[in-house]
Amino acid sequence: MTFKVKALQKTSPEAPFQVTEIERRDPREDDVVIDIKAAGICHSDIHTIRNEWGQAHFPLTVGHEIAGVVSAVGDAVTKFKVGDRVGVGCLVNSCGECEQCRNHQEQDCLNRPVGTYDSLDVDGTITQGGYSQKVVVNERFVCTIPDGLDFDHAAPLLCAGITTYAPIARWNIKEGDKVAIVGLGGLGHMGVQIAAAKGADVTVLSRSLKKAEAAAELGAHRTLATSEEGFFKAHRGEFDFILSTISASYDLQDYLRLLKPHGVMAVVGLPPEKMSLGLGSLIGGGKVLTGSNIGGIKETQEMLDFCASKGIGAVIEKIGVHDVDAAYDRVVAGDVKFRFVIDTSTFEE
Amino acid sequence: MTFKVKALQKTSPEAPFQVTEIERRDPREDDVVIDIKAAGICHSDIHTIRNEWGQAHFPLTVGHEIAGVVSAVGDAVTKFKVGDRVGVGCLVNSCGECEQCRNHQEQDCLNRPVGTYDSLDVDGTITQGGYSQKVVVNERFVCTIPDGLDFDHAAPLLCAGITTYAPIARWNIKEGDKVAIVGLGGLGHMGVQIAAAKGADVTVLSRSLKKAEAAAELGAHRTLATSEEGFFKAHRGEFDFILSTISASYDLQDYLRLLKPHGVMAVVGLPPEKMSLGLGSLIGGGKVLTGSNIGGIKETQEMLDFCASKGIGAVIEKIGVHDVDAAYDRVVAGDVKFRFVIDTSTFEE
Repeated sequence: MTFKVKALQKTSPEAPFQVTEIERRDPREDDVVIDIKAAGICHSDIHTIRNEWGQAHFPLTVGHEIAGVVSAVGDAVTKFKVGDRVGVGCLVNSCGECEQCRNHQEQDCLNRPVGTYDSLDVDGTITQGGYSQKVVVNERFVCTIPDGLDFDHAAPLLCAGITTYAPIARWNIKEGDKVAIVGLGGLGHMGVQIAAAKGADVTVLSRSLKKAEAAAELGAHRTLATSEEGFFKAHRGEFDFILSTISASYDLQDYLRLLKPHGVMAVVGLPPEKMSLGLGSLIGGGKVLTGSNIGGIKETQEMLDFCASKGIGAVIEKIGVHDVDAAYDRVVAGDVKFRFVIDTSTFEE
Repeated sequence: MTFKVKALQKTSPEAPFQVTEIERRDPREDDVVIDIKAAGICHSDIHTIRNEWGQAHFPLTVGHEIAGVVSAVGDAVTKFKVGDRVGVGCLVNSCGECEQCRNHQEQDCLNRPVGTYDSLDVDGTITQGGYSQKVVVNERFVCTIPDGLDFDHAAPLLCAGITTYAPIARWNIKEGDKVAIVGLGGLGHMGVQIAAAKGADVTVLSRSLKKAEAAAELGAHRTLATSEEGFFKAHRGEFDFILSTISASYDLQDYLRLLKPHGVMAVVGLPPEKMSLGLGSLIGGGKVLTGSNIGGIKETQEMLDFCASKGIGAVIEKIGVHDVDAAYDRVVAGDVKFRFVIDTSTFEE
C-alpha cells in the first residue's frame, strides 16, 4: 500500500520542475517515515535529472540531502521514535551482508546499494528523492541530527559533508597538517570547515582570489590563485594532503607536484573526461592519488556528531519550491554561497 | 687523494663495456671502503648507460646492487669494521638534515639525494657505480648483510628487494591479504617472495602462463594470464593490493577494477608514456593509486633482515665481467630468471 505526498518532479530532462503528488510506500516494520523540513540541492541532482549521466528514469524527484522529523515508525524500528530529528543522505538500502556492508561501507555494497533517487529499489520501484514533503526509509539508513544542528544547515551535510569528511578522516588529517582544498563550492566549503576543525593549516586553491574572503570566514588560513604565473612551481612540495572538489579537467601532475613526499591527493570531484597521468608523478616521492565516494552510514553519523560538536554546518541560501529551476542555473554558474536548501514548508503555499 | 680500481666502463651509449681503471676517493673519516664481491644488473643501469633517460655522463660505470666486505674504514666510522659483510643500494649520500632525511626517507631528500652512479656527488664529481672491484661510501648509506644471505643472492636485494619491500610494508600487507604481483621479472620475483613471506595469498598476473611454474616456486599461489578473453571482468574486485612492476603501457582502469573497494594499487614500474585515467575508477570504491621509489636506508636494513629471517634472496644467474653486454640484451628481451649478478672476481681473469 502507498500514500501520496507532494513533491517536485520533472517529467523529462528539459521540463521545468512541477509540484505534484508522488507515492511513498506505507512503512514496513523496519521503516521510518520522515516529515522533510529541508532538502539540499547537490550538483549530482542536476546532472541526474538533466540526464547528463544518462539513463535517468522519468518522471523523477531528486534530492539526497534530507533533514526532518520522524512522524511514524514501523513495528520493528528500534533506533528512532516519533519526533526524533533525523537525516538521510545518498543511500536508502544495501544488502547488509557483504564484506563491505559488514565493514560499514554501505556505499560500496557488493550487491549494489540503493541510491536515494533514480535507483532500483528492493521492491522493483525506482527510488524518489527528497524534494518532497515526506520520505520512507529503512531505519538502518537514517541518522540522528544532533540538537546543536538546525535542519537547514544540517541537510547538505548528508552529502557534501560526508563526501569531504570521509577522506579527511581516512587519511587522518590532524593538527598542523598542511591541507589544500581545491575549489570552493558546495563540497569545498565543507572541506575547509572540516579540515580546519581537525586543526589543519588550510589553504584554498582557486582560479582567482575572488573567494578569499569567504574562504577566510570558513576557517581557511589563506587562499592562493592557481592561475598566477608559475604557481605550481612556486608551491611545489608544500602540502601533506590535497582534497580536489573540482569537476572540470585539470593537470594532475601540477597538483601532485604540490604534495610533499608521501603526500596524499584525494579527489571527490569527477571531471567528465579521462585525465593524463605520468606514473613518475606518483613514483617520485611515493605519492598517493585516491578517490572517495560519500561514506558509510556509521561514518555519516560520526560526521554529524563531529560537525555539531565543532559548531559546523553548511552555509546556505534558502529557497522555496518554485525557485529550484532558477537555483539550478545558478549552481551551474557557480553563483551560490554555498548550498541551496529547499524549504519544504513552501509546498503548502 | 684517490686510488685506482678496476671497473666496467662505457665511454658512450653505443660503446661496449670495457674493463678499465677508475678512481675512487681515499676514504674520508666517515667513509667505508668495500671490496665488491657481487654486483647486480638492474634495468635502470641499462636505461641510464644507453642514455635512454638522457643526460648520462660518460665515461660511466653503473651498478647499484652492491654486496661485499669492508676492507678499510675512516677514523670516525662507528657502524662498521674491516671484514664486515655489507651492501650498498641506489643511494650514497643525502643532506641528512631535511624533514625527509630525518624521517629516514633519504630517497626523498629535499636537497636531492646522491645516487650511486651518474649523480653529482658532494665533492663535485660524478658518482661511479658498482660494476667494479671497490667502492667508497659514507657509512650512513651502508647496510649490514646478515650472515644467512650470501653476496650473490643479497646484491639484487639492495634495489629490487627494497623497491618491492617498501610498498608491501607501507600498505601493511599481512596474512590472508589477496595480493597480485603484475609482471614476473627482477622486481616481480622479489615482490612475490616478500608478499608470500608476509603471509599473503599471492597471485602473479602475467600476459601468459609461461612463467607459472617459476612463480609457484617463488611462493605464488597461482598465476593468471591477463591476455585471456574477459580476464579483467572475471576477476573484478578480487584483490586487496596490486603491485605493478611492468614498465610497458597498460590500461590503468583494467587493473583498478581488479581491486576490492578501498584496495591499493602500487606502481614501481614506470611506463615511458603518460597513461589515461578516469578519476571515476578511483572514486568508485575509494581506491588508491600510488607509486613507490626504492626506500630509505633504515628500511633497506629492515628488508635485508626480513629476507634473511625468511630465507629469501634473489634468484640469480651469475656472469663474468666480459658477459655484461650480452646480459643487457637478454634483460631487455626478458630472458633472465631473474637477475644477473656480476662476479667481480672475474676482473682478475
